[in-house]
Amino acid sequence: MSDTWLNKVNWCADGLVPVVTQDVTSNKVLMVAWMNPEALRLTVQTGEAHYWSRSRKKLWHKGEESGHVQKVKEIRLDCDEDVLLLVVEQVGGVACHTGRYHCFFKKLEQGQWLVTEPVIKNPEEIYGQR
Amino acid sequence: MSDTWLNKVNWCADGLVPVVTQDVTSNKVLMVAWMNPEALRLTVQTGEAHYWSRSRKKLWHKGEESGHVQKVKEIRLDCDEDVLLLVVEQVGGVACHTGRYHCFFKKLEQGQWLVTEPVIKNPEEIYGQR
Repeated sequence: MSDTWLNKVNWCADGLVPVVTQDVTSNKVLMVAWMNPEALRLTVQTGEAHYWSRSRKKLWHKGEESGHVQKVKEIRLDCDEDVLLLVVEQVGGVACHTGRYHCFFKKLEQGQWLVTEPVIKNPEEIYGQR
Repeated sequence: MSDTWLNKVNWCADGLVPVVTQDVTSNKVLMVAWMNPEALRLTVQTGEAHYWSRSRKKLWHKGEESGHVQKVKEIRLDCDEDVLLLVVEQVGGVACHTGRYHCFFKKLEQGQWLVTEPVIKNPEEIYGQR
């Protein structure tokens, strides 16, 4: 497979693009992360979501520690070709490192960000004592 | 209303955060754009999505030209507090400037980005001749 599809993406100056990841079953937006070309290539090759961790400055196979991998069902690109959308099956039902189903668990209500989602699995149980 | 909720957002070095906008009815991800604090404040005050246009370098009331405004139903913040999620009613059923329902109309299939969504309304009809 040639890399034409990879070069079609308008990688930003820092070599990354934002990625929205959505659950194929619930349609909830699970998280937003970042990819570089290698992360996208690995995602396509393996069928599991790979991102670029901006904090750790390295490739990140989502679920590599937790087992909560994301099996990719669809990869989409937006009109400006600088944002990706992954539609995935979220293994383990936990996408967020806080142990919640998804990362968008704070909702603005009357000028306050209220936590609306429960912790499904304790992070210490997911990642072990750190 | 004090600005505590606005300061809670981890605005990036450039003063912006990415915003994912999702349709409350279909649950489809419509678009990804950017906000600065003023755009978020206006969104909350007016109940209609406002963004920061990075290309035009100005505040952007979504639908100001097209009439395709987004009526905001929910505003959510992610675990790292640096990405927003808007759940909206998309007036006119067209979120993309190409005249399509949503911006993620290209799907990766066998190493090609295929257009999977029809143009609902001709951009010239939406915006006039330019």
